[in-house]
Amino acid sequence: MPNSVGYAAQGADKPLEYFSFQRRALGPRDVHIDILYCGVCHSDLHLARDEWGGTVYPIVPGHEIVGTIRAVGSEVNQYQVGDTVGVGCMVDSCRQCENCGDGYEQYCDQGFVATYNSEEKQTGGVTYGGYSNNIVVDQDFVLRVDPKLDLAGVAPLLCAGITTYSPLRHWKVGKGHKVAVVGLGGLGHMGVKIAKAMGAEVTMITTSESKVNDAKRLGADAVIISRDKDAMKAARNSFDFILNTVAVPHDLDAYSNLLRRDGNMTLVGIPAEPHPSPSVGVLIGKRRSISGSLIGGIAETQEMLDFCAQHNITADIELIDMQEINEAYERMLKSDVKYRFVIDMQSLAQAASQS
Amino acid sequence: MPNSVGYAAQGADKPLEYFSFQRRALGPRDVHIDILYCGVCHSDLHLARDEWGGTVYPIVPGHEIVGTIRAVGSEVNQYQVGDTVGVGCMVDSCRQCENCGDGYEQYCDQGFVATYNSEEKQTGGVTYGGYSNNIVVDQDFVLRVDPKLDLAGVAPLLCAGITTYSPLRHWKVGKGHKVAVVGLGGLGHMGVKIAKAMGAEVTMITTSESKVNDAKRLGADAVIISRDKDAMKAARNSFDFILNTVAVPHDLDAYSNLLRRDGNMTLVGIPAEPHPSPSVGVLIGKRRSISGSLIGGIAETQEMLDFCAQHNITADIELIDMQEINEAYERMLKSDVKYRFVIDMQSLAQAASQS
Repeated sequence: MPNSVGYAAQGADKPLEYFSFQRRALGPRDVHIDILYCGVCHSDLHLARDEWGGTVYPIVPGHEIVGTIRAVGSEVNQYQVGDTVGVGCMVDSCRQCENCGDGYEQYCDQGFVATYNSEEKQTGGVTYGGYSNNIVVDQDFVLRVDPKLDLAGVAPLLCAGITTYSPLRHWKVGKGHKVAVVGLGGLGHMGVKIAKAMGAEVTMITTSESKVNDAKRLGADAVIISRDKDAMKAARNSFDFILNTVAVPHDLDAYSNLLRRDGNMTLVGIPAEPHPSPSVGVLIGKRRSISGSLIGGIAETQEMLDFCAQHNITADIELIDMQEINEAYERMLKSDVKYRFVIDMQSLAQAASQS
Repeated sequence: MPNSVGYAAQGADKPLEYFSFQRRALGPRDVHIDILYCGVCHSDLHLARDEWGGTVYPIVPGHEIVGTIRAVGSEVNQYQVGDTVGVGCMVDSCRQCENCGDGYEQYCDQGFVATYNSEEKQTGGVTYGGYSNNIVVDQDFVLRVDPKLDLAGVAPLLCAGITTYSPLRHWKVGKGHKVAVVGLGGLGHMGVKIAKAMGAEVTMITTSESKVNDAKRLGADAVIISRDKDAMKAARNSFDFILNTVAVPHDLDAYSNLLRRDGNMTLVGIPAEPHPSPSVGVLIGKRRSISGSLIGGIAETQEMLDFCAQHNITADIELIDMQEINEAYERMLKSDVKYRFVIDMQSLAQAASQS
């Protein structure tokens, strides 16, 4: 049974600190991964601070994991020692329900087993995530990563990447489509890159003048400042699809009105308080729809990783040491990151030697 | 220029009363229709009382019209004198925009010309609706009606029928689909009949125990009383599509939760006050969507009329005299009608002789 070290919060108001723990014994279908990089998702902070309820302490966050396989179980047939792999938000699901059968493990009727803070089927304990030097995962929930890529930049694809890729693919975004991405953060910057690579004409809609150049650098064909009423009015009825990545309550109608007939706006962020109720008239007026989307299935995540490798897409990141995680959380709260923190797990070896 | 008589409201707080007026002169592409029946839609009441704003008085409501052609213009090539025809909610549109070009005149970018209380292109006056003995309409906005049907029961198809048919068709409801219809009123009772005829398994969801038998008589395979928490819980994740016909503010999540993965709930009623804001988590949890739908295009309305003729579907109606309209409005406010009032325009001749 491998010994692991990582960073954990011991309570809602506690900082993340050095933590040593046991991973489960390597089962026959398990893969044991040495973690190289782990992205820092806003959910990590929400859960570390028990902002969504249900956090089990100690909690080891992290679900944007890239690493190298150190060992494989006796029945593992998809991976070998030395392979570069990724792990995202899920490490298991019921595998029995219709959604799992259809490749939509994220919509598992029993609820998927999350990479951290979920009940671990094999042990009845709690799952510990990627803020750690290694992890044990069933091979069916492991993704293949092209080792030639910038692996630190690949890590955020496992959550931010698939969360934006999946709805863009589901709503058949491609050449000839006009797409808007609302919000330029960790999700939004991936949305722009991926929608552009899919062939769409992409507009970034942001509150910040300061992000215009960056949005264009990321691939946006146009940028609309959402406070610019004339620009918003001029964009009415013009988009086939809107990917809305903003997780704070806001006026959805302002964006729905930009959709053409039959256009869809997909929300990928859950606000802590409800959005103002969207106008039924705005939906009815052009048969518009509003929907939600949650990460993506395992097969689709692999498809996304392959797509990103093919199009040379990685996240724009700021590499930090594990020891800087609490400061990174404070900066993340101020949106002071372009556009994702990624933890270099080499720093954890140093922490281990100091502990 | 034909002389017309009808019933009009002269102000928001005035009852509908006998009114005599001029229709526009028959243009080369116009059809002059003697009205046999006109359905009574809740919108008629809203607009007669200026509850949505923008009512121009006097107002002659009515957009569920069935009649017989009395005369045709010199260039009319689609209809002949004596044809049985219908007119729905629209009598014109810009015919230039992409939506009109695609056959979605109801989503015309310039706004369609409504059958009543709209600006009439030809005269700059206001359009007067079907609470009248005749009407002049461009042939492109006239529908063909099978004269063998119960014509009084056909009238409500022109609004209630197409409003429910269009989203059911758009979301590809058919054999093997589980559909719920929320609300058993004028729209809901058509929704049940049409969804059933399309081959779906249909569940009526209603607040009223008293409507169970009626829902089954209309074709529902099952009925859920929305206050029955156990029944609602048992129905979670089970419907492919929900047609929500309820126009008063209500908890949308209670119904969204009944949708399977990728299920859609289409709203066809606009509440006077907003619904409580739908939960983003409920949408995200199964990639559900909420959308709106507005009546249907002209070609689709013809398709609906043909479909209903083929399946022998008409509305369940209560035939009234024109003179009873104010009482009918009061009863409609109490949902005391199964399920649509239809005015017999023969009664208007009597009114005319008395006036």
